[in-house]
Amino acid sequence: MSKEKGTLFIVSAPSGAGKSSLIAALMQRFNLDDSLRLSVSHTTREPRPGETNHVSYHFVSNEEFEALIARNAFYEYAKVFDHYYGTSKEIVEEWINDGKDVFLDIDWQGARLIREQSPYAKSIFILPPSLEELQNRLKKRGQDSDEVIKKRMEKAKREISHYNEYDYLIVNDVFDESVLALRSIVLAHRFELKRQSNKHKQLLDAMLEGYSK
Amino acid sequence: MSKEKGTLFIVSAPSGAGKSSLIAALMQRFNLDDSLRLSVSHTTREPRPGETNHVSYHFVSNEEFEALIARNAFYEYAKVFDHYYGTSKEIVEEWINDGKDVFLDIDWQGARLIREQSPYAKSIFILPPSLEELQNRLKKRGQDSDEVIKKRMEKAKREISHYNEYDYLIVNDVFDESVLALRSIVLAHRFELKRQSNKHKQLLDAMLEGYSK
Repeated sequence: MSKEKGTLFIVSAPSGAGKSSLIAALMQRFNLDDSLRLSVSHTTREPRPGETNHVSYHFVSNEEFEALIARNAFYEYAKVFDHYYGTSKEIVEEWINDGKDVFLDIDWQGARLIREQSPYAKSIFILPPSLEELQNRLKKRGQDSDEVIKKRMEKAKREISHYNEYDYLIVNDVFDESVLALRSIVLAHRFELKRQSNKHKQLLDAMLEGYSK
Repeated sequence: MSKEKGTLFIVSAPSGAGKSSLIAALMQRFNLDDSLRLSVSHTTREPRPGETNHVSYHFVSNEEFEALIARNAFYEYAKVFDHYYGTSKEIVEEWINDGKDVFLDIDWQGARLIREQSPYAKSIFILPPSLEELQNRLKKRGQDSDEVIKKRMEKAKREISHYNEYDYLIVNDVFDESVLALRSIVLAHRFELKRQSNKHKQLLDAMLEGYSK
């Protein structure tokens, strides 16, 4: 079998759509064969209690981060309150070239930057099942003031307003069905002609040996 | 929910790839919700013992068939040994407009004709797992002469030589995995932006009400 490249899947959602739980459940489904990887961000901030290096973030020093910037290792990076945050292009492309599919959880702005740099990436937008449900989920996150909730709602709407830049749209109503949708999207892309004809080149050559149209 | 159109899936394979069993198993998986339909050909020949009208074929008279030709009801039709055979465009398009996904089992020539008339159709090619397996499956069909087997093999190779005109390629090695692949392709297309944004137009409008970028 020839080496086939994996597919990069960009996933965005407004806060409160259930994206993180969906991705976690999806990764579980592919746990056994290690054919799907989740991209982890780099940061220079200190790990918080309970955070694990290379799982929560790749925790690196300022010097390391700036060396990564210098060698163009990021799709995008930003400095927030004195700390760098970045999305590794280097690691994602290594995985893709190794035939892994990769999920990358990012907002609509990051998604745009990645599409520009990885034209074959596929993107998925996740919506909560209703406006009420979105509001409830945004309110549930602690004892916040109306002002804070209103700002959060505005931010969610801004994210949602970009839904039509994505290839797929999943309304996260029934959790298990949304996981099945994500899994189906991943599997379907594995059977696209380009990937399969690379993977099975020898078989195709053998079957067509001596044949001329 | 607004009305969303279904997707037409064209499936081709050389004889001996296991296509019919795969499609039968796939249809079973979607039995409950009737969201996937299998296109059935029209013919003017007599039903054979065990054949059921509208399942094996739509059995129609010469007059009926020619009336269907006259109103352009077929993607393609042919007369073989005095009997007409045709693939109904009318029924398929009615189902698609009704939101059903449709599978249509046809050879590479028919697939070409349908692609021309239904540019949004997706096509899937199925291969047997090896050249030896293909030969075995072609030989197993009764006590045929070497000449007959050789001709069958040539026909299979001709079909295989068109694999690269399809969107998806499935090597039917493990039956259940091939059924899962087909099911994933069907489900993935249901979550494409275009279908979902039609289906969930009200939800999207509600979530973006009063929002301007």
